[in-house]
Amino acid sequence: MKLRDLGEFGLIERIERAASRSRAGARGLIVGIGDDAAVLRPPAGEDWVVTTDALVEGTHFRWSNQSARCIGRRALVANLSDLAAMGARPLGFVFALAAPPSLEVRTLDGLVAGLLAEAETHGCPLIGGNLSRARQTSITITAQGCVKRGRALLRDAARPGDRIFVTGTLGGVALEVARAAVGRGRVRGVPIPRLRAGRALARMSDVGACIDISDGLLADLDHVLDRSGCSAELDLASLPRPPRFEAACRRLGVDPIRLATCGGEDYELLFTLRASRAAGPTAAALARRLGVAVTEIGKVVKKVAERRKKAGWRHF
Amino acid sequence: MKLRDLGEFGLIERIERAASRSRAGARGLIVGIGDDAAVLRPPAGEDWVVTTDALVEGTHFRWSNQSARCIGRRALVANLSDLAAMGARPLGFVFALAAPPSLEVRTLDGLVAGLLAEAETHGCPLIGGNLSRARQTSITITAQGCVKRGRALLRDAARPGDRIFVTGTLGGVALEVARAAVGRGRVRGVPIPRLRAGRALARMSDVGACIDISDGLLADLDHVLDRSGCSAELDLASLPRPPRFEAACRRLGVDPIRLATCGGEDYELLFTLRASRAAGPTAAALARRLGVAVTEIGKVVKKVAERRKKAGWRHF
Repeated sequence: MKLRDLGEFGLIERIERAASRSRAGARGLIVGIGDDAAVLRPPAGEDWVVTTDALVEGTHFRWSNQSARCIGRRALVANLSDLAAMGARPLGFVFALAAPPSLEVRTLDGLVAGLLAEAETHGCPLIGGNLSRARQTSITITAQGCVKRGRALLRDAARPGDRIFVTGTLGGVALEVARAAVGRGRVRGVPIPRLRAGRALARMSDVGACIDISDGLLADLDHVLDRSGCSAELDLASLPRPPRFEAACRRLGVDPIRLATCGGEDYELLFTLRASRAAGPTAAALARRLGVAVTEIGKVVKKVAERRKKAGWRHF
Repeated sequence: MKLRDLGEFGLIERIERAASRSRAGARGLIVGIGDDAAVLRPPAGEDWVVTTDALVEGTHFRWSNQSARCIGRRALVANLSDLAAMGARPLGFVFALAAPPSLEVRTLDGLVAGLLAEAETHGCPLIGGNLSRARQTSITITAQGCVKRGRALLRDAARPGDRIFVTGTLGGVALEVARAAVGRGRVRGVPIPRLRAGRALARMSDVGACIDISDGLLADLDHVLDRSGCSAELDLASLPRPPRFEAACRRLGVDPIRLATCGGEDYELLFTLRASRAAGPTAAALARRLGVAVTEIGKVVKKVAERRKKAGWRHF
């Protein structure tokens, strides 16, 4: 069965039914799918956080090397990761799908199942959307969250002297994508948006800047440094990599440092902490607080005129 | 110059510069373009309203018969109209663009200029977005607004006995699109989102349901009746049409009633008012209150088992 067989409103009803079966939680959801717009009622004293991100067939994913469910999960994770990088709690997301009428309904079902699985894991219900006919499939998600007033984590808040940390490990997703690109396996892994870590950081008083690593460590660090007017010194040898990463890279003939620094889509958080005269928290202490492994990878320094070459994923 | 010549971050900077020159107002905007997400601070005691809508090249617009600026304006209007239908005040919008690297930068400039023109008119600043490479251009906008707690206008609130009204006139946009489709002129008109009327309705106590007419009067009335579990009696002869509409339809060989009832993209509001034992407000009195022409077109009745054939624009 194809999308065209169900028609626009048949498809909307199908998605609405799937969403109503999911238990993504609806605290603060007043009106969901089916009206002109969704209505949310966040707790008092919170700022409202909004982010949008798209996955386009042929650019960000191929139907041939990952499941529709996996693509759906990754689409929502990309947005949840942006909320995590702001220290926000998710409230809900809208889902705009552009797709050919010849797309199989079971592919749409897979996408929606993936979206709803992540929605349930992270308490971020599907609250609305839009369907359009297009030659190429694209999934555009806008996620809404909230953060205690004035506590959003920003890119421009790094200062010289700050210590630089990352959560988790880097390069694992890029390795899987590189493998799938040469036909060795499918893309199966779905990164974990570091929502708990982001919220813990938003409660700390000595945090500087924060960003999620979507374009690659160096490109995203660049965004922080650009906005903050600083430079950085990194200890590339200290970068946390997945187990057996070097051997896997060697077998594939790719440079492990390049994958870990420029690979993108890790969706780990990069953040800075003010250095204090006292020793400051260790990475292990931070890991306990954030609920995820944390590694110190360098420090922020005063702006250096000559900047290293920018690197990372570019869209145009 | 093509999109690929500027690169993703060059394009983001260009859009950010254009947005910073616009005077769309930024009351409540804490963080705009350039961070992982935007941050808004709506007034206390307000619900948050979220809507998303997309324009796809070849489906909703052609570069050949309207300007990029006009397309940009219509893209934002479609979303603002949804906020209007909820009785909401706009706070800001995010703009996800998928486009081929070969697209001219001046076309992007036109789209952005159109978006920002409407943004300025209606006090709805551009607060963030996303750029993706794609074979086909699509513009996905998610608009955020707010409405006094519990006062959002809903589709499911029509009741038997309600009087049915529409703002403005119907069929004008469909006529222009039909003309352009046969090569007689370009699409130039941009509908006005009825934000003031929507907010006035949200303050009234005797309002029933409300929806904006995007798919066509009959299709959108159907949404209201479906959600409300009612039927309706319409006086088709009473439908408000633009000046000289019948003659123009005759010249083009199209049915004026069909255009006015099924044409779509009018972005007028359809709403219902509880009938009272007293005469209730006249259309003229409502027009003064809403700041736009208002016409009474029928009434809501108890659900009739046999429903007329659904009509209107379908995407799949």
